[in-house]
Amino acid sequence: MSAGAARKQTVNPQIGDRKVEKKSDRLPALELEAARWFNTDVPITLAGLRGKIVILHAFQMLCPGCVAYAIPQAKRLFELARGTDLVVLGLHTVFEHHAAMTPVALEAFVHQYRISFPVGVDQASTDGTIPKTMAAYGMRGTPSTVIIDREGHLVRHTFGTEDDLALGLLLGSLLNEPPVAEIESGAGNGE
Amino acid sequence: MSAGAARKQTVNPQIGDRKVEKKSDRLPALELEAARWFNTDVPITLAGLRGKIVILHAFQMLCPGCVAYAIPQAKRLFELARGTDLVVLGLHTVFEHHAAMTPVALEAFVHQYRISFPVGVDQASTDGTIPKTMAAYGMRGTPSTVIIDREGHLVRHTFGTEDDLALGLLLGSLLNEPPVAEIESGAGNGE
Amino acid sequence: MSAGAARKQTVNPQIGDRKVEKKSDRLPALELEAARWFNTDVPITLAGLRGKIVILHAFQMLCPGCVAYAIPQAKRLFELARGTDLVVLGLHTVFEHHAAMTPVALEAFVHQYRISFPVGVDQASTDGTIPKTMAAYGMRGTPSTVIIDREGHLVRHTFGTEDDLALGLLLGSLLNEPPVAEIESGAGNGE
Amino acid sequence: MSAGAARKQTVNPQIGDRKVEKKSDRLPALELEAARWFNTDVPITLAGLRGKIVILHAFQMLCPGCVAYAIPQAKRLFELARGTDLVVLGLHTVFEHHAAMTPVALEAFVHQYRISFPVGVDQASTDGTIPKTMAAYGMRGTPSTVIIDREGHLVRHTFGTEDDLALGLLLGSLLNEPPVAEIESGAGNGE
Repeated sequence: MSAGAARKQTVNPQIGDRKVEKKSDRLPALELEAARWFNTDVPITLAGLRGKIVILHAFQMLCPGCVAYAIPQAKRLFELARGTDLVVLGLHTVFEHHAAMTPVALEAFVHQYRISFPVGVDQASTDGTIPKTMAAYGMRGTPSTVIIDREGHLVRHTFGTEDDLALGLLLGSLLNEPPVAEIESGAGNGE
Repeated sequence: MSAGAARKQTVNPQIGDRKVEKKSDRLPALELEAARWFNTDVPITLAGLRGKIVILHAFQMLCPGCVAYAIPQAKRLFELARGTDLVVLGLHTVFEHHAAMTPVALEAFVHQYRISFPVGVDQASTDGTIPKTMAAYGMRGTPSTVIIDREGHLVRHTFGTEDDLALGLLLGSLLNEPPVAEIESGAGNGE
Repeated sequence: MSAGAARKQTVNPQIGDRKVEKKSDRLPALELEAARWFNTDVPITLAGLRGKIVILHAFQMLCPGCVAYAIPQAKRLFELARGTDLVVLGLHTVFEHHAAMTPVALEAFVHQYRISFPVGVDQASTDGTIPKTMAAYGMRGTPSTVIIDREGHLVRHTFGTEDDLALGLLLGSLLNEPPVAEIESGAGNGE
Repeated sequence: MSAGAARKQTVNPQIGDRKVEKKSDRLPALELEAARWFNTDVPITLAGLRGKIVILHAFQMLCPGCVAYAIPQAKRLFELARGTDLVVLGLHTVFEHHAAMTPVALEAFVHQYRISFPVGVDQASTDGTIPKTMAAYGMRGTPSTVIIDREGHLVRHTFGTEDDLALGLLLGSLLNEPPVAEIESGAGNGE
């Protein structure tokens, strides 16, 4: 077996019980719609992050699972990602208790929890309670995690907390994932 | 920036505060010297695992840090690794309390802790307390973790517990790591 | 040694490194000053709880240590206290980020974290940032814990999280603590 | 309500879902049968501990639940109990893998896990696998916890791990528990 052949087998592993889209099946990720951002001087777009791996943590500041697991995980991931092509983003997707989870409250939350990665405020919808990015992605609640590859394609979108080890494996494999062209042409040179 | 260029930057990330050897600087990993194995019908050698990523957990059954962190982590990793090229091995490196940590006791430990990955018994040395593989690798104690790439080269050797997220990132990146030739030639096609 | 003598030795144990006031040295606890209450139909006063053991958890909804440790501990304690003379109270003592931690936000927090014990809103001061009960008690921050005996006397007042085992030991010993008169007269009948 | 009346209500609380025997219903605890002891110069008997509250942790050194929860809890409890009438004991009740969990191995375990409270080795039975104290108490496995009051009577005997807060509440209440005579005569002076 050549090293090239071996690599192909692990391009899109299913990590744990969570499905990961094969590279050739992935669709473009929908653009974020944020009303404002914290921890960044310029608004962030997925288009501007092409070439990077993006992990987006959608959360609410009063969501216990977000505060206990997802936010601490995102903070540690942000530290581990320094110097790499992995970008960690937060998105405040308020779909309940809107009067309590205002941008003013979020600013205090970001300060109190010492969050230093960029956090966007999902754009409120005009006729409902679900904000725009959350609705477009069809998120079922918080925490939700969206992972996007270097081509801007959606790799995985999950609801609930993520296991550290499984998440690390997936993100690490994406950091070194070969381009589609290489994967496809690889079929002929090693098996 | 081309995707090829981007990939090069993340081939050998330093994960957290732990140094990872650059692929071109890695040396061949020393072969294991095991007196016997549990959970495998045939003895395991690193030579026989060429083409795979290997993570070796060196432990003692009466080492609190091993039992509380390293063993549970190895068990979860073994489950996550099913269907991939990642191989999880244990090595019982007894350097103290030899009368207590015999193979008979280890067999009970493997049963009680429901360990299903292969576990080797490090070969006792003839003139000292440190068993042979432990001595050859210069391990400072337990738990120690050794990570080996597809070419059988040593990627990292650490003493103490490993963070799940950092370990996952490293192992995931190794699963998709390009061959050395590709990394070196990559310098000319994108920067 | 008589059982009476034995009991005297444990009336006021120092639990861990936290000092517990001897019963004869305790001073009356200052009354609470709450602007409003959640999870109770009638306002609560310490005067009205004479004859009970009271544990008061002073917290802020955006205080990480409160959310991660003190609030979950208070919730479990409230469940364990059913049918006993132990009363669990919360007090929202906002001393920073006042615009974020309003009563409306607290109401959402109480709902999201499924808090069912009574929670008071510490009365805002007229000329400063520290609310009235917090100021009167000289609390240094959140979480702070105040424990009051059946006579309404202050047993202990601490800043920071409490160890479950140590806290349980103290509260259990207070539930069965003999009256002062009995402790004092006990000196003559058993040693 | 008098303080005396209030105290009676909490003498024998059910803590959580675990039943605690009423003082008047408790039976004498069976004596320990230990082949040898670690961490004490003289063998320990329950008879010799009359006047103290005793908590006995029955464990096996290769029992995961014991190592992860019960032993660390007993260690912390032993530290908290200094200077009080609470006595923490361990009992090594080996009912499986006897060849692995020998006294020599236990000695190494006690050293490696830095256990400083007294640990007895349950006396092997002559005709079976269950050692004598374990059999006499009808323990269902490990960890098992036995709590004994100042009169040497059995307060509670449970199988499985104990919640820190609940255990602390029970032990604290036992430390200050009035004698039976006082409880009974108390019925006439306050209600």
